[in-house]
Amino acid sequence: MGRDRIDAYLQTHANDFEEQLKALLRIPSVSAQPAHDVDTRQAARFVHDDLAAMGLKTEIVETKRHPLVYAERLTAPGKPTVLFYGHYDVQPPEPLEPWKSKPFEPVVRDGNVYARGATDDKGQMFTHLKAAEAWLKTVGELPVNVKFLIEGEEEIGGENLEEFVAKNAAKLACDYAVISDTSQFAPGEPAITIGLKGLAYFEIHVEGANRDLHSGTYGGAVANPLNALAEILASLKGPDGRVRVNGFYDAVRDLDDSGRKAFADLPFSEEEFRADLGVRETFGEAGYTTLERKGARPTCDVHGLWGGYSGDGPKTVLPCKAGAKFSFRLVPDQDPAAIARQVRAHVEAHAPPGVTVELISHMGSPGIVVDVDSPGFRAAVKAIEASFGVAPLFIREGGSIPVVGLLKKHLNVDTLLLGWGQNDDNLHGPNEKFSLADFHRGIKAIAHLLDELSRTS
Amino acid sequence: MGRDRIDAYLQTHANDFEEQLKALLRIPSVSAQPAHDVDTRQAARFVHDDLAAMGLKTEIVETKRHPLVYAERLTAPGKPTVLFYGHYDVQPPEPLEPWKSKPFEPVVRDGNVYARGATDDKGQMFTHLKAAEAWLKTVGELPVNVKFLIEGEEEIGGENLEEFVAKNAAKLACDYAVISDTSQFAPGEPAITIGLKGLAYFEIHVEGANRDLHSGTYGGAVANPLNALAEILASLKGPDGRVRVNGFYDAVRDLDDSGRKAFADLPFSEEEFRADLGVRETFGEAGYTTLERKGARPTCDVHGLWGGYSGDGPKTVLPCKAGAKFSFRLVPDQDPAAIARQVRAHVEAHAPPGVTVELISHMGSPGIVVDVDSPGFRAAVKAIEASFGVAPLFIREGGSIPVVGLLKKHLNVDTLLLGWGQNDDNLHGPNEKFSLADFHRGIKAIAHLLDELSRTS
Repeated sequence: MGRDRIDAYLQTHANDFEEQLKALLRIPSVSAQPAHDVDTRQAARFVHDDLAAMGLKTEIVETKRHPLVYAERLTAPGKPTVLFYGHYDVQPPEPLEPWKSKPFEPVVRDGNVYARGATDDKGQMFTHLKAAEAWLKTVGELPVNVKFLIEGEEEIGGENLEEFVAKNAAKLACDYAVISDTSQFAPGEPAITIGLKGLAYFEIHVEGANRDLHSGTYGGAVANPLNALAEILASLKGPDGRVRVNGFYDAVRDLDDSGRKAFADLPFSEEEFRADLGVRETFGEAGYTTLERKGARPTCDVHGLWGGYSGDGPKTVLPCKAGAKFSFRLVPDQDPAAIARQVRAHVEAHAPPGVTVELISHMGSPGIVVDVDSPGFRAAVKAIEASFGVAPLFIREGGSIPVVGLLKKHLNVDTLLLGWGQNDDNLHGPNEKFSLADFHRGIKAIAHLLDELSRTS
Repeated sequence: MGRDRIDAYLQTHANDFEEQLKALLRIPSVSAQPAHDVDTRQAARFVHDDLAAMGLKTEIVETKRHPLVYAERLTAPGKPTVLFYGHYDVQPPEPLEPWKSKPFEPVVRDGNVYARGATDDKGQMFTHLKAAEAWLKTVGELPVNVKFLIEGEEEIGGENLEEFVAKNAAKLACDYAVISDTSQFAPGEPAITIGLKGLAYFEIHVEGANRDLHSGTYGGAVANPLNALAEILASLKGPDGRVRVNGFYDAVRDLDDSGRKAFADLPFSEEEFRADLGVRETFGEAGYTTLERKGARPTCDVHGLWGGYSGDGPKTVLPCKAGAKFSFRLVPDQDPAAIARQVRAHVEAHAPPGVTVELISHMGSPGIVVDVDSPGFRAAVKAIEASFGVAPLFIREGGSIPVVGLLKKHLNVDTLLLGWGQNDDNLHGPNEKFSLADFHRGIKAIAHLLDELSRTS
């Protein structure tokens, strides 16, 4: 089948691939920030051109916000069809101060490329493109039919992808879907993610009086939106780490003995985990281990809060408004829409008197679990073992990839979550990185996966 | 005594006084912000030059931070000595966006001058200077001995004033102290403040992991400093508006029947108060009226909070640090040092596991009550009645003026709190203003006060 020729091509072109990835990382395609809309579009064009150059039928699909890139090559009759999903948009780079090098000027240090989007998801998504290129430039053809769907609204929970998928279910029909937007278990320990959390994300605005006031003259007589915000946020979670929203745990299935054993069997050092993060102790829901909390329990985190004076020295202002962003990670069977209703009821019930509260629901997606007893899953295991030299672990992750549920709903397809990242890649934080060795191993694994999947028909 | 000549001088020079005040307001003497240190010094020089020009012996006293202005004219043997205190520094103008005109470009609208410091305290302090000037430019002499002490660290709770007063108690010795840094009860209802709250101000920093993390990968497994900060702040006050810090109310004397009657007798419309602030309901400690809460009960307010992402759209970061500023207004008998110890113990007890908490104590001052049965107080009543045409009300205020306690401690003198501001002057907020009519009435009241006090010896 030409595996040797493909592997040789990957070796010969390793440097080219890295330079191409850096060019993509230089484009500040921050989907959340309208100031970067032109860059976001440029990243879509970059992906489009790369797919077109290797010989795929490629198009840029306009949406109400950021465009989608779609490409296909359906030249393997009788063979399965594989849909590769990825996203070219990135998280905002802020705060900028902690970055050791600029977020959109990729730099290689110690074998890692540092840049916003390096691992999430430009670097990982790019492994799919380069694997297809290797087949086309050596064998001259792909062993399966392939479709690429690369979007620009993953980091903002855009609704345009779902609209496109729903309207184009026939066009997107496939036997397997593949996403590389997750992490390995640890360096040298590749993994397939078999569970993902869902997400329900909110923004809250609290307002008091019609203007900022002197806290001496008015303090204690009118409600303070900052105190009120703190009360509302504090009410979301108890000191035992459990979410206090009524009904929140109703649909959560507790871990059974085999589930707990699967977590306990994973190679994990609580001590190393703490040392890496620089914390004296971990903290989470009472009654569960760190890996269980990360993988199998719903959580609640505040992502940002603001209000009043944050400059030098004391200022005795009674501010008139405050706000925060927060979200819940959900496990399978928790319905994001139901959670959103429960959270709204909770916030209304816990808003102190004297303030007005506005709650905005930003995005929602359900959690998922993957069927490991399937031909596609077994093919992925073989491909990863061939590339990484070791069999992958099966892990449940705390991250959320809404598109997995979306593909299941509209295309009735299960997704293979083949992640090449590492847990300390700082995706969403400063100094995001991606191991170049893993970048190349990922390309090779996908190249082999195409071959393995061609045998499943 | 020349009251007619003085009143005529005030009328003739009203416009000059306004222009001089505007020149002072143009100096951005923000004591909290080191970038404005040169402006702060310039404001000191402005005050110094004005006092020197009218014939006082004047000096600029260097401190470790912002200079003091001291001036005296001791040419009335056998007559009482009056110490006028004021401050030339101002609060930070931020947030700038809500200002209708620029904070350091004074503009007159509807008879009010709008600028940071207009009422707090440049405009009010300036009434003392212009009253002395009127005597010296007409009668040619002052009817009492006067001392001026104008500082530049009032808004940052600087400790340099106390050091100066303690070391120069003989030099500053006086029979009466006068401060105009408070408000009237309402337009047309002048007041003498007979009670002031104390203040204990804190800044808190909460840290979690050594870097920002992905909330999916790490959420629920490590403590979130933003959730922790919300919990700590929410723990300070209960839903009944009462402070929950252990021991906080120990020294608080409850209002007796006559105290409650004094508040109840004040002309006050809860409806107008709400309408002015644009709130549907007031909120404060259960069991007390709005005026009681404002004047006679200790309070707790958050002044600012920050942490994580506050830009556009959702960002699923688990931030590594957060912070806030908050304070307690104290009533007489509450010891700021004891409160600081109690707050520190409370924060330590309520800090959730997994985060490190740093508490900074910014400033502290005790609350005070004034003796209304004294010759100085009766003189002030007469002077205000002569200028405003109506007898002043006696009120207890929520604001804090630490220097009152300091003058009592080191000079053993009671302070007359003669405020010309209005409650809606937005001191410490955007669009701070000062009524020019009250500015001129204040000058006249002080000019008459000098005469009244000369008869008390």
